[in-house]
Amino acid sequence: MKSVEQYKVFSVELEGTAEGNPYVDVTFGARFERADGGDAVDVPGFYKGDGTYGVNFMPGSAGAWNYATHSSDSALNGVQGSFEVTPASGDNHGRVLRARDVLPREAPFSTENDFTFAYEDGTRYLPFGTTCYAWTNQDEELQEQTLETLSHAPFNKIRMCIFPKFYDYNVEDPAMYAFEGSKGAFDHTKFYEPFWENLEKRIAQLDELGIQADIILLHPYDKPEDWGFSRMTKDEDVFYLTYAVRRLAAYKNVWWSLANEWDLLPWKPAEDWDLYARIVMANDPYGHLRSIHNCREIFDHSHPWITHVSWQRCDLQRTAECVVDLRAQYGKPVIVDEAGYEGNINWGWGNLTAEEEVRRFWEGCLRGGYVTHGETFVDRGPKLWWAHGGKLYGDSPERIAFCRSYMESLPSGMDWVPDEIGVIDGTFTWDVTCMADSMGKGTDDVLMYFGFFRPAYREFTGDEGKRYQVDVIDTWNMTVETLPQEFEGAFRIDLPSRQYMMLRVRTVKAE
Amino acid sequence: MKSVEQYKVFSVELEGTAEGNPYVDVTFGARFERADGGDAVDVPGFYKGDGTYGVNFMPGSAGAWNYATHSSDSALNGVQGSFEVTPASGDNHGRVLRARDVLPREAPFSTENDFTFAYEDGTRYLPFGTTCYAWTNQDEELQEQTLETLSHAPFNKIRMCIFPKFYDYNVEDPAMYAFEGSKGAFDHTKFYEPFWENLEKRIAQLDELGIQADIILLHPYDKPEDWGFSRMTKDEDVFYLTYAVRRLAAYKNVWWSLANEWDLLPWKPAEDWDLYARIVMANDPYGHLRSIHNCREIFDHSHPWITHVSWQRCDLQRTAECVVDLRAQYGKPVIVDEAGYEGNINWGWGNLTAEEEVRRFWEGCLRGGYVTHGETFVDRGPKLWWAHGGKLYGDSPERIAFCRSYMESLPSGMDWVPDEIGVIDGTFTWDVTCMADSMGKGTDDVLMYFGFFRPAYREFTGDEGKRYQVDVIDTWNMTVETLPQEFEGAFRIDLPSRQYMMLRVRTVKAE
Repeated sequence: MKSVEQYKVFSVELEGTAEGNPYVDVTFGARFERADGGDAVDVPGFYKGDGTYGVNFMPGSAGAWNYATHSSDSALNGVQGSFEVTPASGDNHGRVLRARDVLPREAPFSTENDFTFAYEDGTRYLPFGTTCYAWTNQDEELQEQTLETLSHAPFNKIRMCIFPKFYDYNVEDPAMYAFEGSKGAFDHTKFYEPFWENLEKRIAQLDELGIQADIILLHPYDKPEDWGFSRMTKDEDVFYLTYAVRRLAAYKNVWWSLANEWDLLPWKPAEDWDLYARIVMANDPYGHLRSIHNCREIFDHSHPWITHVSWQRCDLQRTAECVVDLRAQYGKPVIVDEAGYEGNINWGWGNLTAEEEVRRFWEGCLRGGYVTHGETFVDRGPKLWWAHGGKLYGDSPERIAFCRSYMESLPSGMDWVPDEIGVIDGTFTWDVTCMADSMGKGTDDVLMYFGFFRPAYREFTGDEGKRYQVDVIDTWNMTVETLPQEFEGAFRIDLPSRQYMMLRVRTVKAE
Repeated sequence: MKSVEQYKVFSVELEGTAEGNPYVDVTFGARFERADGGDAVDVPGFYKGDGTYGVNFMPGSAGAWNYATHSSDSALNGVQGSFEVTPASGDNHGRVLRARDVLPREAPFSTENDFTFAYEDGTRYLPFGTTCYAWTNQDEELQEQTLETLSHAPFNKIRMCIFPKFYDYNVEDPAMYAFEGSKGAFDHTKFYEPFWENLEKRIAQLDELGIQADIILLHPYDKPEDWGFSRMTKDEDVFYLTYAVRRLAAYKNVWWSLANEWDLLPWKPAEDWDLYARIVMANDPYGHLRSIHNCREIFDHSHPWITHVSWQRCDLQRTAECVVDLRAQYGKPVIVDEAGYEGNINWGWGNLTAEEEVRRFWEGCLRGGYVTHGETFVDRGPKLWWAHGGKLYGDSPERIAFCRSYMESLPSGMDWVPDEIGVIDGTFTWDVTCMADSMGKGTDDVLMYFGFFRPAYREFTGDEGKRYQVDVIDTWNMTVETLPQEFEGAFRIDLPSRQYMMLRVRTVKAE
């Protein structure tokens, strides 16, 4: 009997008619059911060309499963099979979902799980993403190099498009197209199989690397005459979205980003995005995370289909700082998916220093949000990572790795403390970003991030009867120093008058 | 005959009664009148102790002047005299006022003079201030050192208090007090003459250095038990303000700041500040500039007695950037009088790098506002400049000098260009701060400041038929490089991938 690991993809492939246009003419799908009569999942299938039909299934539980197909083509109808699902192992924790949809909400009431993510087995997931919009549209060699780079990069999410990208620094035609046909004459009712096979393979490879594929379904960076993918009709969009989601939804690491910079597609009315979201949901039996990304005008993220905020900063001075406003506004996890990129291109969103890029990560994380990386150097290699993938040349990734491992090492439940609430008795926090194990005075585990400020010291007035242990963290130089003495009462911690320092002040329990 | 230079102080001193409390009991003043029957100015006088009375007058025009005193004390009443006023010479341009109150408003309508300052003779004045709150409360030697430092610093305005300051890093008692009496027992109806003589002397010395004395009349940094100057009654405040203004208003370099951080004096109701402003105006025949400075809550600067906005940033990320919002809101010149200080003290307002301090100057200037310096190092000398004066140790003053000389070298009429208006045909400006000779496309003189961004180049599409000359300015390293070639059509300017660069693009007139 065939077997597959829980949460991995079990594919059924059958031969049927190749007459007419099966992409349009033939219905195909399968019902997957636990042999013990538990879960049953109806999964829509898809045509793969040359008379081949497929259906991809992600089993959510271990055990014996059966399936039966249904189709308008009798050759594909009523085909049955069985397979064994082995328990998830190693780093396989299933899909990433919102923590509140996975974890029990504990009393007393807490918003902790409203702003965070977790794998479906309950393991915490903190997104530390990067951006390679068109990496699967590059040649084979470059795609392989991208995977090699990702294999030792700190990123566990990647923002990537299906359609090729035409934009500054990225004006070449792609290696393959999603549709059959050729430039200026694509057939929007037929999909080009090698393209989709490659895309599935790349998503599976990302999954092996523990990387979420944040798939951007539509975007404005088009060659309208040659490609025209941004200017398809509503019906064509729906047909494409249906196919893409049926094909890719079984990969546990898939997230759906309806669009990049939706506001740069003004010819698509705002209500169409709601329709497209319904199409995505109807064809994704697994309920993957869904969002939509802005350029200057944020999409109203209160729409119920949006699981989390995928934001691009709209302000030159405040980026990750806005996490707290977005959390308050939408009550959902917030990812600053474009916070500006490390690099030196001509545009302000792509010529940040590594220091500023990394500062935005810490700032966003301590405010209870998440930040996505990108790299745009014109002179440190043949390709810009942000568009093509390839190699990373910047100084931020290793610091982001440090940030990620530090944040992952924190106990769960730590969250941003609003400025107006002091942490530790008498300690003002208006000028630092603070995260603590509970809001306000009397907290027992406090992080204070100084960002671009550079104090020579900081003073504290500890709570009566408490002793404190202090770590001095240099987020740029990636050091954590636990001070040898313990502190109590009024105390002062010396700092090196450098930027990007952080303090952690923890209560030492009385003996 | 006595003579005095135009705009300088002509003092009359007379002996009268010393009985009772002349500060309260005796009225004294003089009418100053041009001998040719032109201007006449009624000037209130003041008691100086020991039976001596004074009146200080700033003649606004050259020529022969007469005066006649009036007093409730017959010995001081009806005393007449004459003096000669010689024309202003050298750097003596009179008071600084709002440009719109000095310069004719030219057609077509322009807001140019609404946001700028000028001396009363029409000479442009761009404030580049610094902050030494309590410098005149220090010992003689330190005061002299402060003046020595200022004599070769780039600052032409200084924010300074009358009352001593009790606050972090500055907890000593002052050398002298404004009132007679002693700690815990000051007589708020009697002024201590040596204090006021010293204050007058220091203001006159600042004037000799070309520095405006932005005098802070009230502030909250008090020792309530020992000093109590922030907790005087309304009547005592009025009495003190009347005296201070009568005594100091004749110095052409005086500005009035009603309060520092007015919102930290919540026991003084907001309407009292209007009363205090009326007292200031009633006793200042010269109409010096007036404002009031905030901590976190800005005073409503639409009050008509406020001549300009004296703002403290209330936002960690945006400081000088807010100039444009404040201009739009109040229609008055905007000075970010606390933009954060270069230094490394414990508080976020006082531990900026020099880079960030200087960035805020350029950002504020290019947005058509002004920024004030301060320095707060705990470890670069015995005294913190911001509170005590003394010496400057930072790396920002020489860069501020460069900024000042650069801004002063620009033709008048250049102003900030809103982000949504491109400068030069087709050049987006959302990610740079631009100043130009007219708003929008077709401008012939454009500054583009990149701030903390660090592009490797910038592209332009010039207007048809125009050729351009380009300067590459490194605001940190203080260099201006005029590129040898001229540019036209689509062109690209290489930049060094460093922060704090600026471009100036000027149209070369066709031959």
